[in-house]
Amino acid sequence: MLAVGKELLIGRTLNTNAHWMGKRLARMGTMLKQVTTVDDDLGEIASAFRGIARRSPDFLVVVGGLGPTPDDMTLKGVADGLGVSLRRNDVALRLMREHYAMRGMGKVELTPARLKMARLPAGAEPLLNETGSAPGVRLATGGTTVYCLPGVPAEMKGIFRRAVEPEIRARVGKLNRRYVTMKLEGALESDLAPLIAAELRRHPGAYVKSHPKGTREGVSRIELDVAVVGDRKEWADRECRAIVAEMKEGVVGLGGTVRAVRGAGG
Amino acid sequence: MLAVGKELLIGRTLNTNAHWMGKRLARMGTMLKQVTTVDDDLGEIASAFRGIARRSPDFLVVVGGLGPTPDDMTLKGVADGLGVSLRRNDVALRLMREHYAMRGMGKVELTPARLKMARLPAGAEPLLNETGSAPGVRLATGGTTVYCLPGVPAEMKGIFRRAVEPEIRARVGKLNRRYVTMKLEGALESDLAPLIAAELRRHPGAYVKSHPKGTREGVSRIELDVAVVGDRKEWADRECRAIVAEMKEGVVGLGGTVRAVRGAGG
Repeated sequence: MLAVGKELLIGRTLNTNAHWMGKRLARMGTMLKQVTTVDDDLGEIASAFRGIARRSPDFLVVVGGLGPTPDDMTLKGVADGLGVSLRRNDVALRLMREHYAMRGMGKVELTPARLKMARLPAGAEPLLNETGSAPGVRLATGGTTVYCLPGVPAEMKGIFRRAVEPEIRARVGKLNRRYVTMKLEGALESDLAPLIAAELRRHPGAYVKSHPKGTREGVSRIELDVAVVGDRKEWADRECRAIVAEMKEGVVGLGGTVRAVRGAGG
Repeated sequence: MLAVGKELLIGRTLNTNAHWMGKRLARMGTMLKQVTTVDDDLGEIASAFRGIARRSPDFLVVVGGLGPTPDDMTLKGVADGLGVSLRRNDVALRLMREHYAMRGMGKVELTPARLKMARLPAGAEPLLNETGSAPGVRLATGGTTVYCLPGVPAEMKGIFRRAVEPEIRARVGKLNRRYVTMKLEGALESDLAPLIAAELRRHPGAYVKSHPKGTREGVSRIELDVAVVGDRKEWADRECRAIVAEMKEGVVGLGGTVRAVRGAGG
Protein backbone atom coordinates (compact mmCIF):
# COMPACT_ATOMS: atom_id res chain seq x y z
CA MET A 1 0.00 0.00 0.00
CA LEU A 2 1.12 3.51 -0.77
CA ALA A 3 -0.75 5.85 1.58
CA VAL A 4 -0.74 9.52 0.61
CA GLY A 5 -1.58 12.32 3.03
CA LYS A 6 0.14 14.76 5.34
CA GLU A 7 -2.53 14.08 7.98
CA LEU A 8 -1.01 10.59 8.40
CA LEU A 9 2.47 12.06 9.01
CA ILE A 10 1.62 14.83 11.47
CA GLY A 11 -0.35 12.70 13.91
CA ARG A 12 -3.74 14.04 12.83
CA THR A 13 -5.10 10.77 11.44
CA LEU A 14 -4.26 7.19 12.40
CA ASN A 15 -3.73 5.01 9.34
CA THR A 16 -6.81 2.90 9.99
CA ASN A 17 -7.06 2.22 6.25
CA ALA A 18 -3.84 0.17 6.33
CA HIS A 19 -5.07 -1.62 9.45
CA TRP A 20 -8.40 -2.49 7.85
CA MET A 21 -6.92 -3.64 4.57
CA GLY A 22 -4.16 -5.60 6.32
CA LYS A 23 -6.72 -7.47 8.39
CA ARG A 24 -8.89 -8.28 5.36
CA LEU A 25 -5.95 -9.58 3.35
CA ALA A 26 -4.65 -11.65 6.27
CA ARG A 27 -8.06 -13.28 6.68
CA MET A 28 -7.90 -14.26 3.00
CA GLY A 29 -4.64 -16.07 3.77
CA THR A 30 -2.47 -13.51 1.99
CA MET A 31 -0.72 -10.44 3.34
CA LEU A 32 -0.13 -6.75 2.98
CA LYS A 33 3.59 -6.86 2.32
CA GLN A 34 4.57 -3.24 2.86
CA VAL A 35 2.96 0.11 3.64
CA THR A 36 4.65 3.33 2.65
CA THR A 37 3.17 6.64 3.75
CA VAL A 38 4.18 9.86 1.98
CA ASP A 39 3.29 13.54 2.08
CA ASP A 40 1.03 15.35 -0.40
CA ASP A 41 3.97 16.09 -2.65
CA LEU A 42 4.22 15.27 -6.32
CA GLY A 43 7.88 14.23 -6.26
CA GLU A 44 7.41 12.09 -3.13
CA ILE A 45 4.41 10.27 -4.58
CA ALA A 46 6.05 9.64 -7.96
CA SER A 47 9.32 8.48 -6.39
CA ALA A 48 7.64 6.17 -3.88
CA PHE A 49 5.40 4.79 -6.64
CA ARG A 50 8.40 4.01 -8.85
CA GLY A 51 10.28 2.41 -5.96
CA ILE A 52 7.38 0.07 -5.22
CA ALA A 53 6.53 -0.70 -8.86
CA ARG A 54 10.18 -1.63 -9.48
CA ARG A 55 9.76 -4.58 -7.12
CA SER A 56 6.76 -5.80 -9.17
CA PRO A 57 4.25 -6.69 -6.46
CA ASP A 58 1.12 -8.46 -7.72
CA PHE A 59 -1.01 -5.60 -6.43
CA LEU A 60 -0.36 -2.04 -5.33
CA VAL A 61 -3.12 -0.08 -3.65
CA VAL A 62 -2.55 3.68 -3.53
CA VAL A 63 -4.83 5.34 -0.98
CA GLY A 64 -5.68 9.03 -0.61
CA GLY A 65 -5.30 12.23 -2.61
CA LEU A 66 -7.98 11.70 -5.29
CA GLY A 67 -10.15 14.69 -4.38
CA PRO A 68 -10.64 18.15 -5.88
CA THR A 69 -8.29 20.25 -3.71
CA PRO A 70 -4.75 21.40 -4.58
CA ASP A 71 -3.15 18.88 -2.20
CA ASP A 72 -4.93 16.01 -3.98
CA MET A 73 -2.20 15.08 -6.43
CA THR A 74 -2.03 11.30 -6.32
CA LEU A 75 -3.12 10.69 -9.92
CA LYS A 76 -0.56 13.18 -11.22
CA GLY A 77 2.09 11.57 -9.00
CA VAL A 78 1.21 8.09 -10.28
CA ALA A 79 1.19 9.34 -13.89
CA ASP A 80 4.63 10.91 -13.33
CA GLY A 81 5.83 7.66 -11.78
CA LEU A 82 4.60 5.77 -14.84
CA GLY A 83 5.94 8.37 -17.27
CA VAL A 84 2.49 8.95 -18.81
CA SER A 85 0.23 11.99 -18.87
CA LEU A 86 -3.18 12.64 -17.33
CA ARG A 87 -6.15 12.51 -19.71
CA ARG A 88 -9.77 13.37 -19.25
CA ASN A 89 -11.64 10.08 -18.96
CA ASP A 90 -15.23 10.15 -20.27
CA VAL A 91 -16.39 7.23 -18.15
CA ALA A 92 -15.01 8.94 -15.02
CA LEU A 93 -16.79 12.12 -16.05
CA ARG A 94 -20.07 10.25 -16.46
CA LEU A 95 -19.64 8.60 -13.03
CA MET A 96 -19.10 12.03 -11.48
CA ARG A 97 -22.15 13.53 -13.22
CA GLU A 98 -24.26 10.62 -11.99
CA HIS A 99 -22.88 11.08 -8.46
CA TYR A 100 -24.01 14.71 -8.36
CA ALA A 101 -27.32 13.98 -10.11
CA MET A 102 -28.21 11.24 -7.62
CA ARG A 103 -27.71 13.73 -4.79
CA GLY A 104 -30.07 16.26 -6.34
CA MET A 105 -27.11 18.34 -7.49
CA GLY A 106 -27.63 17.73 -11.20
CA LYS A 107 -26.89 21.36 -11.94
CA VAL A 108 -23.49 21.34 -10.18
CA GLU A 109 -21.06 23.03 -12.50
CA LEU A 110 -18.06 20.95 -13.58
CA THR A 111 -15.45 23.44 -12.37
CA PRO A 112 -11.73 22.81 -12.98
CA ALA A 113 -11.48 21.43 -9.41
CA ARG A 114 -14.16 18.84 -10.18
CA LEU A 115 -12.88 18.06 -13.68
CA LYS A 116 -9.52 17.26 -12.11
CA MET A 117 -11.05 14.16 -10.51
CA ALA A 118 -11.86 12.81 -13.99
CA ARG A 119 -8.32 13.23 -15.30
CA LEU A 120 -6.71 9.79 -15.04
CA PRO A 121 -3.27 8.46 -16.00
CA ALA A 122 -3.32 7.36 -19.66
CA GLY A 123 -4.44 3.72 -19.88
CA ALA A 124 -6.31 3.74 -16.56
CA GLU A 125 -9.96 2.89 -16.03
CA PRO A 126 -12.23 4.51 -13.43
CA LEU A 127 -13.92 2.52 -10.66
CA LEU A 128 -17.38 3.43 -9.39
CA ASN A 129 -17.35 5.23 -6.03
CA GLU A 130 -20.81 4.76 -4.52
CA THR A 131 -20.17 7.07 -1.57
CA GLY A 132 -18.11 10.02 -2.82
CA SER A 133 -17.49 12.07 -5.93
CA ALA A 134 -13.94 10.99 -6.87
CA PRO A 135 -13.89 7.72 -8.84
CA GLY A 136 -11.31 5.07 -8.00
CA VAL A 137 -8.74 4.12 -10.62
CA ARG A 138 -7.39 0.82 -11.91
CA LEU A 139 -4.38 0.39 -14.17
CA ALA A 140 -1.70 -2.18 -14.98
CA THR A 141 2.06 -1.72 -15.19
CA GLY A 142 4.50 -4.57 -15.67
CA GLY A 143 3.08 -7.47 -13.69
CA THR A 144 1.42 -5.16 -11.17
CA THR A 145 -2.24 -4.21 -10.95
CA VAL A 146 -2.50 -0.74 -9.42
CA TYR A 147 -5.58 0.62 -7.70
CA CYS A 148 -5.95 4.22 -6.55
CA LEU A 149 -8.65 4.61 -3.91
CA PRO A 150 -9.93 7.65 -2.00
CA GLY A 151 -8.60 8.14 1.54
CA VAL A 152 -12.05 8.61 3.12
CA PRO A 153 -12.47 5.22 4.83
CA ALA A 154 -16.07 4.57 3.73
CA GLU A 155 -15.17 5.29 0.10
CA MET A 156 -11.95 3.26 0.25
CA LYS A 157 -13.72 0.26 1.78
CA GLY A 158 -16.62 0.35 -0.69
CA ILE A 159 -14.37 0.30 -3.76
CA PHE A 160 -11.94 -2.19 -2.19
CA ARG A 161 -14.72 -4.68 -1.42
CA ARG A 162 -16.39 -4.38 -4.80
CA ALA A 163 -13.49 -3.95 -7.23
CA VAL A 164 -10.20 -4.93 -5.56
CA GLU A 165 -10.92 -7.87 -3.28
CA PRO A 166 -12.46 -10.18 -5.90
CA GLU A 167 -9.41 -9.79 -8.11
CA ILE A 168 -6.98 -10.48 -5.24
CA ARG A 169 -9.08 -13.44 -4.12
CA ALA A 170 -8.98 -14.92 -7.63
CA ARG A 171 -5.17 -14.66 -7.63
CA VAL A 172 -4.68 -16.02 -4.10
CA GLY A 173 -7.07 -18.96 -4.38
CA LYS A 174 -8.94 -20.50 -1.50
CA LEU A 175 -6.80 -20.61 1.64
CA ASN A 176 -7.71 -21.44 5.21
CA ARG A 177 -6.21 -19.44 8.02
CA ARG A 178 -6.27 -20.32 11.69
CA TYR A 179 -5.26 -17.50 14.01
CA VAL A 180 -5.11 -17.79 17.77
CA THR A 181 -3.95 -15.45 20.52
CA MET A 182 -2.77 -16.94 23.84
CA LYS A 183 -2.65 -14.66 26.90
CA LEU A 184 0.32 -15.61 29.03
CA GLU A 185 1.41 -14.54 32.50
CA GLY A 186 4.56 -15.04 34.51
CA ALA A 187 6.93 -15.95 31.69
CA LEU A 188 9.65 -13.65 30.33
CA GLU A 189 9.68 -13.07 26.58
CA SER A 190 13.38 -13.89 26.52
CA ASP A 191 12.60 -17.30 28.05
CA LEU A 192 9.87 -17.92 25.48
CA ALA A 193 12.30 -17.19 22.64
CA PRO A 194 13.87 -20.69 22.43
CA LEU A 195 10.41 -22.32 22.69
CA ILE A 196 9.17 -20.20 19.79
CA ALA A 197 12.27 -21.02 17.77
CA ALA A 198 11.62 -24.74 18.36
CA GLU A 199 7.99 -24.41 17.23
CA LEU A 200 9.04 -22.62 14.06
CA ARG A 201 11.47 -25.46 13.30
CA ARG A 202 8.86 -28.10 14.06
CA HIS A 203 6.10 -26.39 12.05
CA PRO A 204 7.68 -24.72 9.00
CA GLY A 205 5.60 -21.89 7.58
CA ALA A 206 3.72 -21.35 10.84
CA TYR A 207 3.71 -17.94 12.50
CA VAL A 208 4.40 -17.69 16.24
CA LYS A 209 5.05 -14.23 17.66
CA SER A 210 5.09 -12.81 21.17
CA HIS A 211 3.82 -9.33 22.04
CA PRO A 212 4.99 -8.13 25.47
CA LYS A 213 2.21 -6.27 27.29
CA GLY A 214 4.20 -5.03 30.28
CA THR A 215 3.86 -6.27 33.83
CA ARG A 216 1.00 -6.23 36.35
CA GLU A 217 2.02 -6.41 40.00
CA GLY A 218 5.46 -7.51 38.90
CA VAL A 219 4.08 -10.34 36.74
CA SER A 220 5.05 -10.24 33.07
CA ARG A 221 2.16 -10.39 30.60
CA ILE A 222 2.57 -11.53 27.00
CA GLU A 223 0.19 -12.12 24.12
CA LEU A 224 1.35 -14.90 21.87
CA ASP A 225 -0.05 -15.08 18.34
CA VAL A 226 -0.15 -18.34 16.44
CA ALA A 227 -1.21 -18.43 12.79
CA VAL A 228 -1.28 -21.19 10.20
CA VAL A 229 -2.35 -20.84 6.56
CA GLY A 230 -3.02 -23.79 4.28
CA ASP A 231 -5.27 -24.97 1.50
CA ARG A 232 -6.64 -27.81 3.67
CA LYS A 233 -8.83 -26.70 6.54
CA GLU A 234 -8.28 -29.83 8.66
CA TRP A 235 -4.51 -29.55 8.36
CA ALA A 236 -4.52 -25.86 9.38
CA ASP A 237 -6.75 -26.70 12.36
CA ARG A 238 -4.49 -29.55 13.45
CA GLU A 239 -1.25 -27.58 13.08
CA CYS A 240 -2.63 -24.63 15.01
CA ARG A 241 -3.95 -26.84 17.82
CA ALA A 242 -0.60 -28.65 18.04
CA ILE A 243 1.38 -25.41 18.33
CA VAL A 244 -0.97 -24.04 20.99
CA ALA A 245 -0.69 -27.26 23.01
CA GLU A 246 3.10 -27.37 22.70
CA MET A 247 3.50 -23.71 23.66
CA LYS A 248 1.15 -24.21 26.60
CA GLU A 249 3.30 -27.05 27.88
CA GLY A 250 6.42 -24.91 27.45
CA VAL A 251 4.93 -21.91 29.26
CA VAL A 252 3.85 -24.06 32.20
CA GLY A 253 7.36 -25.58 32.23
CA LEU A 254 8.72 -22.04 32.67
CA GLY A 255 6.45 -21.52 35.67
CA GLY A 256 4.02 -19.35 33.69
CA THR A 257 0.30 -19.73 33.08
CA VAL A 258 -1.97 -19.52 30.03
CA ARG A 259 -4.82 -17.21 31.03
CA ALA A 260 -6.83 -17.46 27.81
CA VAL A 261 -6.74 -18.82 24.27
CA ARG A 262 -8.80 -16.84 21.78
CA GLY A 263 -9.47 -17.06 18.07
CA ALA A 264 -10.49 -19.51 15.39
CA GLY A 265 -9.01 -22.98 15.31
CA GLY A 266 -7.71 -22.97 18.90
CA MET B 1 10.42 6.08 10.15
CA LEU B 2 10.96 2.46 9.29
CA ALA B 3 8.42 0.42 11.26
CA VAL B 4 9.12 -3.29 11.53
CA GLY B 5 6.52 -5.85 12.53
CA LYS B 6 4.07 -8.25 10.94
CA GLU B 7 1.45 -7.20 13.52
CA LEU B 8 1.29 -3.81 11.73
CA LEU B 9 0.63 -5.48 8.36
CA ILE B 10 -2.04 -8.02 9.36
CA GLY B 11 -4.35 -5.59 11.13
CA ARG B 12 -3.41 -6.75 14.63
CA THR B 13 -1.81 -3.50 15.79
CA LEU B 14 -2.50 0.07 14.68
CA ASN B 15 0.70 1.99 14.05
CA THR B 16 0.16 4.36 16.97
CA ASN B 17 3.95 4.80 17.24
CA ALA B 18 4.04 6.61 13.89
CA HIS B 19 1.04 8.69 14.94
CA TRP B 20 2.64 9.69 18.24
CA MET B 21 6.03 10.50 16.74
CA GLY B 22 4.45 12.39 13.82
CA LYS B 23 2.49 14.57 16.21
CA ARG B 24 5.53 15.32 18.36
CA LEU B 25 7.67 16.25 15.38
CA ALA B 26 4.93 18.42 13.89
CA ARG B 27 4.59 20.31 17.17
CA MET B 28 8.31 21.01 17.01
CA GLY B 29 7.73 22.63 13.62
CA THR B 30 9.35 19.81 11.66
CA MET B 31 7.80 16.73 10.10
CA LEU B 32 7.92 13.01 9.78
CA LYS B 33 8.62 12.81 6.06
CA GLN B 34 7.86 9.18 5.33
CA VAL B 35 6.82 6.02 7.14
CA THR B 36 7.61 2.61 5.69
CA THR B 37 6.26 -0.50 7.37
CA VAL B 38 7.79 -3.89 6.61
CA ASP B 39 7.44 -7.48 7.77
CA ASP B 40 9.77 -9.28 10.21
CA ASP B 41 11.99 -10.38 7.35
CA LEU B 42 15.72 -9.84 7.10
CA GLY B 43 15.76 -9.06 3.40
CA GLU B 44 12.80 -6.69 3.66
CA ILE B 45 14.33 -4.76 6.54
CA ALA B 46 17.77 -4.48 4.92
CA SER B 47 16.31 -3.45 1.56
CA ALA B 48 13.94 -0.85 3.04
CA PHE B 49 16.78 0.50 5.21
CA ARG B 50 19.07 0.89 2.21
CA GLY B 51 16.31 2.56 0.17
CA ILE B 52 15.71 5.14 2.90
CA ALA B 53 19.40 5.72 3.75
CA ARG B 54 20.12 6.34 0.05
CA ARG B 55 17.95 9.46 0.24
CA SER B 56 20.06 10.76 3.18
CA PRO B 57 17.38 12.00 5.58
CA ASP B 58 18.72 13.90 8.60
CA PHE B 59 17.22 11.28 10.90
CA LEU B 60 15.88 7.78 10.46
CA VAL B 61 14.02 6.13 13.33
CA VAL B 62 13.64 2.36 13.01
CA VAL B 63 10.94 1.04 15.35
CA GLY B 64 10.33 -2.55 16.45
CA GLY B 65 12.10 -5.89 16.34
CA LEU B 66 14.77 -5.36 19.01
CA GLY B 67 13.63 -8.10 21.36
CA PRO B 68 14.90 -11.61 22.12
CA THR B 69 12.61 -13.73 19.89
CA PRO B 70 13.45 -15.20 16.46
CA ASP B 71 11.26 -12.64 14.65
CA ASP B 72 13.21 -9.77 16.26
CA MET B 73 15.76 -9.20 13.51
CA THR B 74 15.90 -5.45 13.07
CA LEU B 75 19.53 -5.01 14.18
CA LYS B 76 20.69 -7.76 11.81
CA GLY B 77 18.61 -6.19 9.02
CA VAL B 78 20.11 -2.75 9.68
CA ALA B 79 23.63 -4.24 9.85
CA ASP B 80 23.01 -6.00 6.52
CA GLY B 81 21.71 -2.75 5.06
CA LEU B 82 24.88 -1.00 6.21
CA GLY B 83 27.12 -3.84 5.10
CA VAL B 84 28.58 -4.29 8.60
CA SER B 85 28.41 -7.15 11.08
CA LEU B 86 26.78 -7.45 14.50
CA ARG B 87 29.12 -7.30 17.49
CA ARG B 88 28.55 -7.85 21.15
CA ASN B 89 28.48 -4.42 22.78
CA ASP B 90 29.72 -4.33 26.37
CA VAL B 91 27.80 -1.20 27.31
CA ALA B 92 24.58 -2.77 25.99
CA LEU B 93 25.37 -5.88 28.00
CA ARG B 94 25.85 -3.82 31.14
CA LEU B 95 22.55 -1.97 30.55
CA MET B 96 20.78 -5.32 30.24
CA ARG B 97 22.38 -6.72 33.39
CA GLU B 98 21.32 -3.58 35.27
CA HIS B 99 17.78 -3.90 33.87
CA TYR B 100 17.43 -7.43 35.25
CA ALA B 101 19.19 -6.58 38.52
CA MET B 102 16.88 -3.62 39.17
CA ARG B 103 13.89 -5.94 38.81
CA GLY B 104 15.22 -8.40 41.36
CA MET B 105 16.26 -10.77 38.58
CA GLY B 106 20.00 -10.38 39.10
CA LYS B 107 20.49 -14.10 38.64
CA VAL B 108 18.77 -14.19 35.22
CA GLU B 109 21.00 -16.21 32.93
CA LEU B 110 22.29 -14.41 29.84
CA THR B 111 20.94 -16.97 27.39
CA PRO B 112 21.63 -16.67 23.63
CA ALA B 113 18.17 -15.07 23.24
CA ARG B 114 19.11 -12.34 25.76
CA LEU B 115 22.65 -11.90 24.48
CA LYS B 116 21.17 -11.25 21.04
CA MET B 117 19.78 -7.93 22.34
CA ALA B 118 23.34 -6.77 23.11
CA ARG B 119 24.66 -7.54 19.63
CA LEU B 120 24.65 -4.20 17.77
CA PRO B 121 25.74 -3.20 14.28
CA ALA B 122 29.46 -2.34 14.32
CA GLY B 123 29.93 1.32 15.19
CA ALA B 124 26.60 1.67 17.00
CA GLU B 125 26.08 2.81 20.57
CA PRO B 126 23.35 1.55 22.90
CA LEU B 127 20.68 3.83 24.39
CA LEU B 128 19.32 3.26 27.88
CA ASN B 129 15.83 1.69 27.91
CA GLU B 130 14.33 2.50 31.30
CA THR B 131 11.23 0.37 30.77
CA GLY B 132 12.30 -2.81 28.95
CA SER B 133 15.25 -5.11 28.53
CA ALA B 134 16.32 -4.33 24.94
CA PRO B 135 18.51 -1.21 24.70
CA GLY B 136 17.87 1.29 21.92
CA VAL B 137 20.59 1.87 19.33
CA ARG B 138 22.13 4.98 17.78
CA LEU B 139 24.45 5.03 14.79
CA ALA B 140 25.47 7.34 11.96
CA THR B 141 25.71 6.61 8.26
CA GLY B 142 26.43 9.24 5.63
CA GLY B 143 24.63 12.36 6.82
CA THR B 144 21.93 10.34 8.58
CA THR B 145 21.60 9.69 12.30
CA VAL B 146 19.84 6.35 12.76
CA TYR B 147 17.98 5.33 15.91
CA CYS B 148 16.58 1.86 16.49
CA LEU B 149 13.87 1.84 19.15
CA PRO B 150 11.74 -0.97 20.61
CA GLY B 151 8.20 -1.31 19.27
CA VAL B 152 6.54 -1.43 22.71
CA PRO B 153 5.06 2.09 22.87
CA ALA B 154 6.17 2.93 26.45
CA GLU B 155 9.76 1.89 25.66
CA MET B 156 9.78 3.69 22.30
CA LYS B 157 8.43 6.91 23.84
CA GLY B 158 10.86 6.84 26.75
CA ILE B 159 13.96 6.53 24.58
CA PHE B 160 12.60 8.95 21.97
CA ARG B 161 11.96 11.67 24.55
CA ARG B 162 15.29 11.27 26.28
CA ALA B 163 17.73 10.47 23.48
CA VAL B 164 16.17 11.32 20.10
CA GLU B 165 14.11 14.46 20.58
CA PRO B 166 16.87 16.68 22.00
CA GLU B 167 19.06 15.91 19.01
CA ILE B 168 16.29 16.64 16.51
CA ARG B 169 15.34 19.81 18.38
CA ALA B 170 18.95 21.02 18.24
CA ARG B 171 18.98 20.50 14.46
CA VAL B 172 15.57 22.04 13.82
CA GLY B 173 16.04 25.12 15.98
CA LYS B 174 13.25 26.96 17.69
CA LEU B 175 10.17 27.14 15.50
CA ASN B 176 6.65 28.27 16.30
CA ARG B 177 3.73 26.39 14.87
CA ARG B 178 0.13 27.50 14.81
CA TYR B 179 -2.35 24.79 13.96
CA VAL B 180 -6.10 25.34 13.74
CA THR B 181 -9.01 23.13 12.68
CA MET B 182 -12.19 24.76 11.35
CA LYS B 183 -15.38 22.70 11.34
CA LEU B 184 -17.42 23.61 8.27
CA GLU B 185 -20.94 22.73 7.19
CA GLY B 186 -22.87 23.14 3.98
CA ALA B 187 -19.95 23.69 1.60
CA LEU B 188 -18.74 21.11 -0.93
CA GLU B 189 -15.04 20.27 -0.85
CA SER B 190 -14.87 20.82 -4.59
CA ASP B 191 -16.17 24.39 -4.07
CA LEU B 192 -13.59 25.00 -1.34
CA ALA B 193 -10.78 23.90 -3.67
CA PRO B 194 -10.31 27.26 -5.46
CA LEU B 195 -10.50 29.13 -2.13
CA ILE B 196 -7.76 26.91 -0.69
CA ALA B 197 -5.65 27.37 -3.81
CA ALA B 198 -5.98 31.16 -3.41
CA GLU B 199 -4.92 31.00 0.26
CA LEU B 200 -1.87 28.91 -0.62
CA ARG B 201 -0.89 31.52 -3.24
CA ARG B 202 -1.48 34.38 -0.80
CA HIS B 203 0.37 32.73 2.09
CA PRO B 204 3.30 30.75 0.66
CA GLY B 205 4.48 27.96 2.94
CA ALA B 206 1.18 27.78 4.82
CA TYR B 207 -0.73 24.51 5.02
CA VAL B 208 -4.45 24.48 4.29
CA LYS B 209 -6.13 21.11 3.84
CA SER B 210 -9.72 19.94 3.84
CA HIS B 211 -10.85 16.62 5.33
CA PRO B 212 -14.35 15.61 4.19
CA LYS B 213 -16.33 14.05 7.04
CA GLY B 214 -19.37 12.89 5.09
CA THR B 215 -22.85 14.40 5.26
CA ARG B 216 -25.39 14.71 8.06
CA GLU B 217 -29.01 15.10 6.98
CA GLY B 218 -27.78 15.88 3.50
CA VAL B 219 -25.45 18.65 4.73
CA SER B 220 -21.78 18.23 3.83
CA ARG B 221 -19.34 18.41 6.76
CA ILE B 222 -15.67 19.24 6.35
CA GLU B 223 -12.78 19.79 8.72
CA LEU B 224 -10.32 22.32 7.41
CA ASP B 225 -6.79 22.35 8.86
CA VAL B 226 -4.68 25.47 8.78
CA ALA B 227 -1.04 25.36 9.89
CA VAL B 228 1.73 27.93 9.82
CA VAL B 229 5.32 27.40 10.96
CA GLY B 230 7.81 30.20 11.46
CA ASP B 231 10.63 31.36 13.68
CA ARG B 232 8.66 34.42 14.82
CA LYS B 233 5.68 33.65 17.03
CA GLU B 234 3.80 36.88 16.23
CA TRP B 235 4.14 36.32 12.51
CA ALA B 236 2.86 32.73 12.76
CA ASP B 237 -0.09 33.91 14.87
CA ARG B 238 -0.95 36.67 12.42
CA GLU B 239 -0.66 34.47 9.33
CA CYS B 240 -2.81 31.77 10.87
CA ARG B 241 -5.49 34.26 11.97
CA ALA B 242 -5.52 35.85 8.52
CA ILE B 243 -6.03 32.52 6.74
CA VAL B 244 -8.80 31.50 9.14
CA ALA B 245 -10.59 34.84 8.61
CA GLU B 246 -10.23 34.66 4.83
CA MET B 247 -11.43 31.06 4.66
CA LYS B 248 -14.36 31.93 6.91
CA GLU B 249 -15.41 34.69 4.55
CA GLY B 250 -15.06 32.31 1.61
CA VAL B 251 -17.11 29.57 3.25
CA VAL B 252 -19.91 31.99 4.12
CA GLY B 253 -19.78 33.25 0.52
CA LEU B 254 -20.48 29.68 -0.60
CA GLY B 255 -23.54 29.52 1.65
CA GLY B 256 -21.75 27.40 4.26
CA THR B 257 -21.15 28.00 7.96
CA VAL B 258 -18.15 27.73 10.28
CA ARG B 259 -19.34 25.68 13.27
CA ALA B 260 -16.15 25.83 15.30
CA VAL B 261 -12.53 26.94 15.20
CA ARG B 262 -10.19 24.92 17.43
CA GLY B 263 -6.50 24.95 18.14
CA ALA B 264 -3.69 27.24 19.03
CA GLY B 265 -3.29 30.57 17.30
CA GLY B 266 -6.85 30.74 15.92
